[in-house]
Amino acid sequence: MSITLYERAKAESEGTAERTFQRPGDTVPQSHEQSSRGRVFLVGAGPGDPELVTLKGLHILRRADIVVYDRLICPELLDEAPSQAERVFVGKESGRHSMKQEEINALLIKFAQQGHLVVRLKGGDPFVFGRGGEEALALAHAGIPFEVVPGVSSAIAVPAYAGIPVTHRNLASSVTIVTGHEQSSCLSPAVNWEALAMSGSTLVILMGVETLSHITQRLLAGGLHPDTPAAVIQQGTVPQQRVITDTLLNIAERARAAKIKSPTVTVIGSVVALSDFLAWFQEGVQENASPLAGARDVPTQFPFSSLDAIGGGAGGLTSPCRGAGCPRPIPLFLAWRRRRHKSGT
Amino acid sequence: MSITLYERAKAESEGTAERTFQRPGDTVPQSHEQSSRGRVFLVGAGPGDPELVTLKGLHILRRADIVVYDRLICPELLDEAPSQAERVFVGKESGRHSMKQEEINALLIKFAQQGHLVVRLKGGDPFVFGRGGEEALALAHAGIPFEVVPGVSSAIAVPAYAGIPVTHRNLASSVTIVTGHEQSSCLSPAVNWEALAMSGSTLVILMGVETLSHITQRLLAGGLHPDTPAAVIQQGTVPQQRVITDTLLNIAERARAAKIKSPTVTVIGSVVALSDFLAWFQEGVQENASPLAGARDVPTQFPFSSLDAIGGGAGGLTSPCRGAGCPRPIPLFLAWRRRRHKSGT
Repeated sequence: MSITLYERAKAESEGTAERTFQRPGDTVPQSHEQSSRGRVFLVGAGPGDPELVTLKGLHILRRADIVVYDRLICPELLDEAPSQAERVFVGKESGRHSMKQEEINALLIKFAQQGHLVVRLKGGDPFVFGRGGEEALALAHAGIPFEVVPGVSSAIAVPAYAGIPVTHRNLASSVTIVTGHEQSSCLSPAVNWEALAMSGSTLVILMGVETLSHITQRLLAGGLHPDTPAAVIQQGTVPQQRVITDTLLNIAERARAAKIKSPTVTVIGSVVALSDFLAWFQEGVQENASPLAGARDVPTQFPFSSLDAIGGGAGGLTSPCRGAGCPRPIPLFLAWRRRRHKSGT
Repeated sequence: MSITLYERAKAESEGTAERTFQRPGDTVPQSHEQSSRGRVFLVGAGPGDPELVTLKGLHILRRADIVVYDRLICPELLDEAPSQAERVFVGKESGRHSMKQEEINALLIKFAQQGHLVVRLKGGDPFVFGRGGEEALALAHAGIPFEVVPGVSSAIAVPAYAGIPVTHRNLASSVTIVTGHEQSSCLSPAVNWEALAMSGSTLVILMGVETLSHITQRLLAGGLHPDTPAAVIQQGTVPQQRVITDTLLNIAERARAAKIKSPTVTVIGSVVALSDFLAWFQEGVQENASPLAGARDVPTQFPFSSLDAIGGGAGGLTSPCRGAGCPRPIPLFLAWRRRRHKSGT
């Protein structure tokens, strides 16, 4: 390799390594396309920590003519756009009229048709509850060239900053990301919380701390164990991060009492118990953290199990086995509950 | 803000902006910790495109003494580590003995105890089926300071490069990420494919093209509609990317006939139908792409629906409504099937 990623970045920022691309099936004549800079990049900004932006996202941001951005985009990232670039806020602000999705789509199309290189900067990843798909369809329909630059999703990174791996061998064989802002329109597929309760997935709920009580009731009704560990993380990956943990039964009330506010990520499943040992992010405040947690308490035996959480719930064991060759599992789930009781939380 | 992200990167690379951190409850005396550079960063390298690495991951990589890396890490990223840094391959290579997880854990601990700054570079995100949780637990138990640097997950980015948003309003209210390498050990929670079939989630299956036939049979048995759109993406986000699409019923046979090889990401759900309009990534080969797709075919009406996919399956409508105020939905799902038939694929 002759050039480094950094050198390529520099060349791209200076426009000396302009990338060319076309989309298949595009009906706009190529001569028009190539003469025009007009295009839209749907860029994921990541979960909050500005250094979790991708190199590709940053390169494109530094070449933007116009940045169309949401509420949760941090100022450090916006500062990376050229000083003369126009910055257009389209997020929701309390007490102010917020732009409808159709209006945002129209804006992106208009800017691109004017020949601008438009960066649509969205929190997390543009295709995880970011309406990125809707914007991409609108652009495709208008014949506007676009690219997607995926970002680090809050659904995975925010739990990681709270010491929670969303999957873990023997604890969670899958992870489901769902929005807490459930739409109940006649076209919208309602979230099947009961099926999710039976799926064995770690559940990651984006936003929706207001509806958490409703959600936990649906999950309990679906058969998820009331002692299933749960965490609510406010403003994850930034110094203001707050983490509270409790059982599925109590987490909604705990979040209410702690006055947890949006933006939040909620995690439900056995993996939450690992946060006692893996909470590495210093700036964050681990509220209700067990005073017993520490290196000496980290279980030595692998793999873990959550045998006392059987019942088909999140992180539960759906096919228990007690055969002769089966190593004795660590009842991590039970230990977590005991630690909580000992520490009086 | 006085410095840019780039300037901070430079300072960090040169060691003039060294970050300090400690973990709570750590039993190693602080004086020891602070005198030692020995620590481990679990870094997600992203899905393949080297520019999808995060800025934070790149900064740390450029300061590494030792890089411990897996099979799917691209050479461009390894080149970013200092030239004198030791590079240790611990991935699986066909025909060679691959290192056990316990051996990898022990290696990380040993290198950190020797005072090295160790980067554990993993494909995608370290906490999504990356065994990052196991490595973090081993480090915590040994009292080794560690940090997690999340990465762009293949589960979201690979579909995005194939023009598939894993969530989409009115098509998928959640997304479930699951591994196709199902473990059937007595401790491992088996994947409840039948519950996943009922969950309404887009299903993203990492790896496991070998077991795809078994998985699709389980999903069909669980009630997922046989016409549910499905895609298998080989080597996503890089120029060698291959995408094949077909119905749930036929996708396994199609993948076999196309000689699809690991690494793969499989997506099952109505959102796959959107790839006809949103496949923006030029380098990729869209095999079986409908010749009818193009800007003129992009539906103008929003929102979409998948009313002909009812039955509670992935992307299906679990609470159908035909009220008077209900806008007439576009039967995207049906249109997708018709397009496929017309184009003779």
